[in-house]
Amino acid sequence: MMDKKLNKQLKFILEVDKMKNILRQTLLMDKSRQENDAEHSWHFALIAFILSEYAPENVNIDRVIKMALVHDLVEVYAGDTFAYDEKGNEDKLLREKEAADKLFGILPEEQGKELHRLWEEFDAMETPDSIYACAIDRLQPFLSNYITNGHTWVLYNITSDKVYARMDLIRTTIPKVWPIIVDMIEDSIEKGFLKRG
Amino acid sequence: MMDKKLNKQLKFILEVDKMKNILRQTLLMDKSRQENDAEHSWHFALIAFILSEYAPENVNIDRVIKMALVHDLVEVYAGDTFAYDEKGNEDKLLREKEAADKLFGILPEEQGKELHRLWEEFDAMETPDSIYACAIDRLQPFLSNYITNGHTWVLYNITSDKVYARMDLIRTTIPKVWPIIVDMIEDSIEKGFLKRG
Repeated sequence: MMDKKLNKQLKFILEVDKMKNILRQTLLMDKSRQENDAEHSWHFALIAFILSEYAPENVNIDRVIKMALVHDLVEVYAGDTFAYDEKGNEDKLLREKEAADKLFGILPEEQGKELHRLWEEFDAMETPDSIYACAIDRLQPFLSNYITNGHTWVLYNITSDKVYARMDLIRTTIPKVWPIIVDMIEDSIEKGFLKRG
Repeated sequence: MMDKKLNKQLKFILEVDKMKNILRQTLLMDKSRQENDAEHSWHFALIAFILSEYAPENVNIDRVIKMALVHDLVEVYAGDTFAYDEKGNEDKLLREKEAADKLFGILPEEQGKELHRLWEEFDAMETPDSIYACAIDRLQPFLSNYITNGHTWVLYNITSDKVYARMDLIRTTIPKVWPIIVDMIEDSIEKGFLKRG
């Protein structure tokens, strides 16, 4: 028979399989379908690793990668909230807090607290690790949007000032990457899939 | 304008989006569809993290997580080879070696070599990190199979001796988890979705 602690961990491992069915607004880069949270989390973790040389010196990439793995887990109960959805973002905090208590509560107590703290740290965006993590979390769907001719920008009538504001975290956190962002935003405006605003 | 090094990294980041379309034999746990490589890699990385307390003491979990993120990348060119497909596994090595040269060759040279080495280390399964990683890489689809009433076992007429042989790595590497594996295999035989063999 399996012991109680391992049983809880196993239950958690099975429960988070639901991440593969939580759809996001962004499309895969081949435009075939919407991306899900599991795919996004993997891509985010890998990008954080690949671009680590541009992270501020005091960033611990190993912790950032762990944040990437867990940062969206609460969405198995709270669902995905689109970044530019102002109404949805109003009650996001409460919905996700309840989801976090429920989901991390499945784990053995100490481990549940550890993951809960890691998620809270990511969400609060106050430490070097979480600030770099959030910048990559924004970069990943930005790249998808650019490659898919601004899929969600067109769909939700997003203007360039909103995109500039959201991506400003990259200018301040990984400045080496910033010129690419500017090029892509300006190119998107020029090609007509992002409105100047 | 973006510099050459960053340009290569960006190209790599976009190219590996294809992982989200490389289908595996295992189903999602809700049986709705086949799982893809990006989802599997994320789940594998998270499971390695959640079960880290049972890993041998000399295992570096941060390296294992990185291995999880990159271990299947070559499949964007080489495709997925089913674990129990004896014919497909004959030329797997060559196909994957060529794919690795092509894919990691997109990156700046030093970084490409670093990822190539990490993938080779995983594949050779000779170091403590890669042995633990491989054990988790086998555990993840095993759990999916168990939850989906032995989907691939039934589909390919797999017998329990094959499953015991493949999972033996868990007995030797994370023995604390072994009793669960035995319970699940025996339960699968009893329920008739895995043939005794």
